[in-house]
Amino acid sequence: MNAVAIPTGETGGGTHRFPADKPLRLDSGALLSPLEIGYKTYGALNADKSNAVLVCHALTGDQHAASVHPITGKPGWWDRVIGPGLPLDPGRYFIISTNVVGGCMGSTGPGSIDPATGKPYALSFPMITIADMVRAQAMLVEALGIEALFAVVGGSMGGMQVLQWAADYPDRLYSAICIAAAARHSAQNIAFHEVGRQAIMADPDWRGGAYEEQGVRPEKGLAVARMAAHITYLSETALQRKFGRELQRDGLSWGFDADFQVESYLRHQGASFVDRFDANSYLYITRALDYFDLAGSHGGVLAQAFRRARAVRFCVLSFSSDWLYSTAESRDIVRALNAAGCRASFAEIETDKGHDAFFLDEPALDSALRGFLESNAEKRGLA
Amino acid sequence: MNAVAIPTGETGGGTHRFPADKPLRLDSGALLSPLEIGYKTYGALNADKSNAVLVCHALTGDQHAASVHPITGKPGWWDRVIGPGLPLDPGRYFIISTNVVGGCMGSTGPGSIDPATGKPYALSFPMITIADMVRAQAMLVEALGIEALFAVVGGSMGGMQVLQWAADYPDRLYSAICIAAAARHSAQNIAFHEVGRQAIMADPDWRGGAYEEQGVRPEKGLAVARMAAHITYLSETALQRKFGRELQRDGLSWGFDADFQVESYLRHQGASFVDRFDANSYLYITRALDYFDLAGSHGGVLAQAFRRARAVRFCVLSFSSDWLYSTAESRDIVRALNAAGCRASFAEIETDKGHDAFFLDEPALDSALRGFLESNAEKRGLA
Repeated sequence: MNAVAIPTGETGGGTHRFPADKPLRLDSGALLSPLEIGYKTYGALNADKSNAVLVCHALTGDQHAASVHPITGKPGWWDRVIGPGLPLDPGRYFIISTNVVGGCMGSTGPGSIDPATGKPYALSFPMITIADMVRAQAMLVEALGIEALFAVVGGSMGGMQVLQWAADYPDRLYSAICIAAAARHSAQNIAFHEVGRQAIMADPDWRGGAYEEQGVRPEKGLAVARMAAHITYLSETALQRKFGRELQRDGLSWGFDADFQVESYLRHQGASFVDRFDANSYLYITRALDYFDLAGSHGGVLAQAFRRARAVRFCVLSFSSDWLYSTAESRDIVRALNAAGCRASFAEIETDKGHDAFFLDEPALDSALRGFLESNAEKRGLA
Repeated sequence: MNAVAIPTGETGGGTHRFPADKPLRLDSGALLSPLEIGYKTYGALNADKSNAVLVCHALTGDQHAASVHPITGKPGWWDRVIGPGLPLDPGRYFIISTNVVGGCMGSTGPGSIDPATGKPYALSFPMITIADMVRAQAMLVEALGIEALFAVVGGSMGGMQVLQWAADYPDRLYSAICIAAAARHSAQNIAFHEVGRQAIMADPDWRGGAYEEQGVRPEKGLAVARMAAHITYLSETALQRKFGRELQRDGLSWGFDADFQVESYLRHQGASFVDRFDANSYLYITRALDYFDLAGSHGGVLAQAFRRARAVRFCVLSFSSDWLYSTAESRDIVRALNAAGCRASFAEIETDKGHDAFFLDEPALDSALRGFLESNAEKRGLA
């Protein structure tokens, strides 16, 4: 084990580079080496190393769950869940958040330099899966000298990583919290991702993926991809309440300017996204999501994925207005957990905010997280 | 009145060119002249001119409701509703279908030659509205020597035209059938259209709209726009049943080829669309839809739009799995019709096919159409 120094301050982390004899074995059969994983930590590991919590990010997230984003300068994406007095209190837990492999915030991804060529991988980067992301996380957790996590938690793609953790490393988990996720990508999920990929690939500045080498960026295509995806993150009700048919100015422009506030909002979502995200990473990570089918990789029976996870305490949460990964999909997960004999608590949180509710102001989510974490922390003997 | 010869055979139509002193007065304040309207007719007008039915098309439809499409060679888009023995039987009704103004199948649109410059209008084409489309239809109906329509019928954007007809020309309508529509575009509807427009405008071959003049076409952008929109036309259930996670080949490609059948299907939808549709028309017609707000143009009270339409017999139909224009939106229309003292029958058709059900194999729709049309045809004294 290549144990690294555990930070004792409030936040730590950086980039962990695995030695050449520790490649990441990918589901595709390829070996990825050298492997680097960008990560952040909040809080300190306790003496018996029993208070570690892994926070998994969603499609366009990163390790800056509770720290200022180095590019945007914005607060961490889960700032309202991680912090003193919050459900994930760094005074109690040692919280780890990693950038997924394939990402663009410090972990090895398509923008990394391929040692074989000295140039960015671009499309020669091997395809990755949710299980590959989790395998890399498990390697990092091990490198940090942690044998078992008190909890692994995440929403959306983060929730899929949580399920994959339970399937692949049940002995290294005490509890698991899966929020607004699904055990497989549906045809509609795949369809929306395919639109985004085609938008990127249609941009002539994508250059078959080799844009970085050629000094350009497919910003327009990536912005369109983000705009399309962003609609799926909000409920129709939330969009209507937030924007309705409100105009930007008095009266219509009778042209193609952004007349409606919702247009301006979407354009802003697209434009700001390209500053912080890499187009090829978007292609690879959406593909990993589309490939995700936990039952499919367990003989077609989802319960089989959890058969070794009976000791893990599960919490599954969904949002009533989430149409990307609906409550019905969370119920399928709970049904499979029950069938496998796992302990699972489940709650559908009533909200009209849609999928993105997991990082918005949603007190019912905070309560559910706090309740589940506290009761398990007591059982685990955490102060 | 510039009456044109009424076809007596099974199908007729062509392009009607209005004289220069009959411009189309647009909601924007502009005058459009010369105005041409592409149209098709099926069946023959009876002696007292009481059997005319106007069929209004949806966003990407055209006048070829029941005739072979001249570009694609495919059957008409409403071939299963219009025909001998079908709800709209040309043996009984004189059926008229027009290409909307702003379209690209014979009616004046952004691809038409601007007489002022001798070049295609492109973005100098004036912005159009649903009311403008209907005004042009009313001019054509008048030019055909028809004082009143037995029925006006349409789905989706066609249904919006039906509502606009009832608001603007109630005295020229006996009955009105509005299918899978809404009285205004919601924030989510606008958002999806804005994604499509941005995809088109992001294509460097769009050339600020002047692509035709420059001998190129923004095919990639238009294809992405179509793909995004197409997802909204199907229900999640229909996509899942039709495609699920079925693969194109044995096993995954571990790349960005179309692995899943749903990807291949969407790519095909995009690729085939660009052969038959004009990108600027797509921009203008989506804008017309976004601008549509029938209550907004009647003092904020939808019932006000129908206050002169008490003699019109209405039929409002929705599909249970339509998430683009949901049943709730059809109910709003019915509520307003009731408040205005109009006669309205309403049915929500149970189907998992989503919005596109209005031109798919949906026997319950056929029955509803047949029932409503037959009972009114009897009242109207049509054989």
